Amino acid sequence: MFSFEIQATDGQARAGIFHTHHGELLTPVFAPVGTQATVKAITPRQLQEVGASLILANTYHLYIRPGDELVARMGGLHTFMNWDRPILTDSGGFQIFSLAANRKIDEDGVTFKSHIDGSLHRFTPEKAISIQENLGADIIMAFDECASPYERDYIHQAMLRTHKWAERCLAARSRNDQALFGIVQGGVFADLRQVSAEFITSLDLPGNAIGGLSVGETKDEMYSIVETVNQILPHNKPRYLMGVGTPNDIVQSVMRGVDIFDCVLPTRLARHNAALTRFDRLNLVNAAFADDPEPIDQACLCYTCQHYSRAYLRHLIIAREMLAATLLSIHNIQTLIDLIKDMRQAIITGQFTQFVSAFLDHQQDNLE
Amino acid sequence: MFSFEIQATDGQARAGIFHTHHGELLTPVFAPVGTQATVKAITPRQLQEVGASLILANTYHLYIRPGDELVARMGGLHTFMNWDRPILTDSGGFQIFSLAANRKIDEDGVTFKSHIDGSLHRFTPEKAISIQENLGADIIMAFDECASPYERDYIHQAMLRTHKWAERCLAARSRNDQALFGIVQGGVFADLRQVSAEFITSLDLPGNAIGGLSVGETKDEMYSIVETVNQILPHNKPRYLMGVGTPNDIVQSVMRGVDIFDCVLPTRLARHNAALTRFDRLNLVNAAFADDPEPIDQACLCYTCQHYSRAYLRHLIIAREMLAATLLSIHNIQTLIDLIKDMRQAIITGQFTQFVSAFLDHQQDNLE
Repeated sequence: MFSFEIQATDGQARAGIFHTHHGELLTPVFAPVGTQATVKAITPRQLQEVGASLILANTYHLYIRPGDELVARMGGLHTFMNWDRPILTDSGGFQIFSLAANRKIDEDGVTFKSHIDGSLHRFTPEKAISIQENLGADIIMAFDECASPYERDYIHQAMLRTHKWAERCLAARSRNDQALFGIVQGGVFADLRQVSAEFITSLDLPGNAIGGLSVGETKDEMYSIVETVNQILPHNKPRYLMGVGTPNDIVQSVMRGVDIFDCVLPTRLARHNAALTRFDRLNLVNAAFADDPEPIDQACLCYTCQHYSRAYLRHLIIAREMLAATLLSIHNIQTLIDLIKDMRQAIITGQFTQFVSAFLDHQQDNLE
Repeated sequence: MFSFEIQATDGQARAGIFHTHHGELLTPVFAPVGTQATVKAITPRQLQEVGASLILANTYHLYIRPGDELVARMGGLHTFMNWDRPILTDSGGFQIFSLAANRKIDEDGVTFKSHIDGSLHRFTPEKAISIQENLGADIIMAFDECASPYERDYIHQAMLRTHKWAERCLAARSRNDQALFGIVQGGVFADLRQVSAEFITSLDLPGNAIGGLSVGETKDEMYSIVETVNQILPHNKPRYLMGVGTPNDIVQSVMRGVDIFDCVLPTRLARHNAALTRFDRLNLVNAAFADDPEPIDQACLCYTCQHYSRAYLRHLIIAREMLAATLLSIHNIQTLIDLIKDMRQAIITGQFTQFVSAFLDHQQDNLE
């Protein structure tokens, strides 16, 4: 059911197809984030138009509001939010650990206070699975602990807990239409990451993820950990790098054998008036754009670039019109999706090495 | 160029076609309001999908920000905001008179302070035309004074000024691809309204408007004034009732010979979490909707009603997601446009009397 076919490889990079109950995912793939069962400021139809195939929703947020049982009564997340393509839910781990002083971890699970009303709640591996089964996503994640990346002793303990929790998640799951992915932890420490990758691989799940990156470590550390982990994770299962990233991060990680990405970057930048291009970011509030009849990016085929000038987008931002966030989200998501589609095409046609070197050269020029 | 063909009548009601440079308007027609060169929270593509053919933009707002000269340099309002169907701009009169203490009227024009930064500005009839020529709408409005409806002496003076200003607007206009409409004033006073309707008719403009209603008078007064004025305004020119209205107002006014409407109601209600139906309004924050799998209106064919439950819409509102305003705006605008299309069809097929009596009966039931 959750077979993964690799169509082509180029070095460590792979172009594949992951089959789910809601259709095929052509990998590498970028998932826009729909935290509260909506990718902020755009409709599912607009998401389809920018080429999105997979979206991520957050288990913690939907458990808190409107509640996973309500979502289940409304027919599950696909029906509730009107998205009939694949959905991935995280396990809530990352959000809960972000609550810092408002959560307490023990070997069995985590007790925490809601960010909405301070009410007390508890997640265990079994609870995280039960919620994700109510939500009904196609890909669900094991409950893990994402700890600060440099505290070796603590990271080690958190990794061991994450492994036990992954086993409990696997034992707890009851739906056979959801692919459970395990999560490799271990901070910036290569030896811990190796141990974790070996353990998670041993569970023989339909896919594997690399967690705990893009949380404060350097770019070199991140790329090095991805490389280390992907030498161990099985070749015939999709690899998901959680919460990443920028265009450069995505290129660097596809090079190192990653297949699935998610990130709030394109939609968050949009709500902060920034347009993302493959090599740059434009702050559209800048007065230089007031009179600029050009689109954000002449080469971009998105609805926004086909129909609107920078001058109009700046006007919407200055006038605090909601349409600004909509049009910028459309553009920013399409930028990342087009980048990853171009990479996929390059892998299939054997041009990936040239693609990467052209990308890195162009980026270098841009930084100078 | 701006010919108006009447295809059918039923009593005072008319179904017609008004030809503009950006295509035909099938009347009666409802124009959503795009104050700042955007109908709030939706894209032009979504506006087309709900069947909008005409939209209104506000001269005062666009003069203040981003400036009519900038809009002209960007190719005019149609290009700037990506709307290739007809646009109507008001003259700024209504907005300026809403500034109350921050404006001073003389015989030649009005001096006022910007609501954005308090800077001083001056509109004259000539200035209002010059701005509207820069914006480039298909229908432009004479500069008028909209005064409080019950102060007879003041209303009389304001009406006489409005007449002089209409003549100056007509003399000032230089573009032949814009239809200038005159505005009848006179508050709630039938004799003043008659004088005004006769004067405005005498200018032989391509269309005529009724201003100064829906500003505090009763519904009966409003309908009575519409009736009085439309006995005088020429049959062979479109009649535009400014700033109206609710479903009932629209039915009552089409019955009395009005062809064009605009109102912020559907989009404003949407941003206040209310769904408009032909006979009702739903406050979707209501806890009763939390678990409600039904669409807003089972009979509605809009994107929102075809794909979303009340439970989901309530979730978006509670979670403060922008998509709520988008989906409610789509539904609310389509409600008014479908109502007016059904009336047009009834006029053409000779069923208008039955349509109105069924509508009024249903509304009466709903009130009881």
